[in-house]
Amino acid sequence: MAGVGVGVAEGEAVTLQELKKKMAEFSRERDWEHFHSPRNLLLALVGAVGELSEIFQWKGEVPRGLPYWNEEEKQHLGEELSDVLLYLVRLSDVCGIELGKAAPRKLELNAIKYQVLVLYYSLLSELSTLSYVILGYRVTTSSI
Amino acid sequence: MAGVGVGVAEGEAVTLQELKKKMAEFSRERDWEHFHSPRNLLLALVGAVGELSEIFQWKGEVPRGLPYWNEEEKQHLGEELSDVLLYLVRLSDVCGIELGKAAPRKLELNAIKYQVLVLYYSLLSELSTLSYVILGYRVTTSSI
Amino acid sequence: MAGVGVGVAEGEAVTLQELKKKMAEFSRERDWEHFHSPRNLLLALVGAVGELSEIFQWKGEVPRGLPYWNEEEKQHLGEELSDVLLYLVRLSDVCGIELGKAAPRKLELNAIKYQVLVLYYSLLSELSTLSYVILGYRVTTSSI
Amino acid sequence: MAGVGVGVAEGEAVTLQELKKKMAEFSRERDWEHFHSPRNLLLALVGAVGELSEIFQWKGEVPRGLPYWNEEEKQHLGEELSDVLLYLVRLSDVCGIELGKAAPRKLELNAIKYQVLVLYYSLLSELSTLSYVILGYRVTTSSI
Repeated sequence: MAGVGVGVAEGEAVTLQELKKKMAEFSRERDWEHFHSPRNLLLALVGAVGELSEIFQWKGEVPRGLPYWNEEEKQHLGEELSDVLLYLVRLSDVCGIELGKAAPRKLELNAIKYQVLVLYYSLLSELSTLSYVILGYRVTTSSI
Repeated sequence: MAGVGVGVAEGEAVTLQELKKKMAEFSRERDWEHFHSPRNLLLALVGAVGELSEIFQWKGEVPRGLPYWNEEEKQHLGEELSDVLLYLVRLSDVCGIELGKAAPRKLELNAIKYQVLVLYYSLLSELSTLSYVILGYRVTTSSI
Repeated sequence: MAGVGVGVAEGEAVTLQELKKKMAEFSRERDWEHFHSPRNLLLALVGAVGELSEIFQWKGEVPRGLPYWNEEEKQHLGEELSDVLLYLVRLSDVCGIELGKAAPRKLELNAIKYQVLVLYYSLLSELSTLSYVILGYRVTTSSI
Repeated sequence: MAGVGVGVAEGEAVTLQELKKKMAEFSRERDWEHFHSPRNLLLALVGAVGELSEIFQWKGEVPRGLPYWNEEEKQHLGEELSDVLLYLVRLSDVCGIELGKAAPRKLELNAIKYQVLVLYYSLLSELSTLSYVILGYRVTTSSI
């Protein structure tokens, strides 16, 4: 656990690779390797997402920045968000997936998907305008 | 999206803060700010965890490293793990939680919790041994 | 599948036991017994809950009765709610849990838990009132 | 809560409509109507699924019938499965979805989907056999 919490700046700049290493050490030191199979960790992740949901369940819609939450509630939220992250990082690791590479790639993929969608719809809209123009022309000429 | 996928080394060392910034840009550029309320993002996260689970659902127990999965399946898995991460990073951001700080802190907290538990059980075990010794002594002396 | 959808009344009055039997037949007829292990079904349930969440994810708060949803959306919602139920019924069955007995019992248990909580708080409140009265008496008498 | 737990037979034959009514009474009596919005109940459902997952998370693959679980564990499992059901029934109710009708219909739909899939694959397989026969004929005739 050396190097954790040395300073705010370091914490803020934590990489996924560092978290992965820490989780691996953590498990090795406690002899948890045996428990950390992919589906065990997946179910633990689902459990953590459940606890995250319980924080929000009776609150109705919540504004961004959580203006009406007290410090204790925010602390609790930070802990549950972290548990989801830690299980996710560990699950990726035991599956041999480098999350630090896969995530930026997925973000780019999402950007391309979105761009294609926008292009598609703008093309559709232009075709529709074009067809109106052509039809309008026909209607105009045929009505002469 | 500049700087994404420039090289393996950079991808591997991606920080949570970088992902947070990219997600924020991504949303701003597409006018999605309005949709990114805490509970909307939480439900999107649950949806992504559902898709992750669907990958594993009919497979029975899966060994670490996924030795029998083909490249396409691993690619798909990497994408779903990434979607969970991206929604988690975005959710933390709109809640004002610095995940890059909260996660290492939670890891330390988990370590402390575990240590306390181990201490508690070893103390319990020693007390139990002690009580046996004392009782044994009594039994021995009283039986004289 | 005989007897399904014969009429509205019958559908409305479907018992959990009937659903359990139908799911069991359904699996046997398709040779799915092998796939229906407890954890496979649990992950399928998580997947179905994910799809349910995707329906609600970008909608913000939604009023009861879904007044602004069209028929197609409600149809889709009904199908996803059903998938969650069908996996839940099947999971309970392969675990040997009689959900038709456990659920009413849990509802009673929840009622008792709630009653105990209410009693506890009302007792707390009365003790607090009592202590004010006693203290008030003391203050009054001592101030004479 | 009258009529609950009167006997085993009645419990086993509980209908979804009866559970729906009981949940509605339960909420009305405790003035919880205000809390029971669709998305609040959905998140409560996700929370309950999380608790269900926690029961299975470190167990590895579990055989059907849970032969190595003790009574207390099975009791706990029954309670968590029930909580998922109760929130699901309540969520369906406040959405105006009649789960007792939708679920048998979805089961039929799943049966049809599966049959279409089987037909499609058997057709594909026959076409493939046919094309082999034709090709074989050609090869045979052309090789003369």
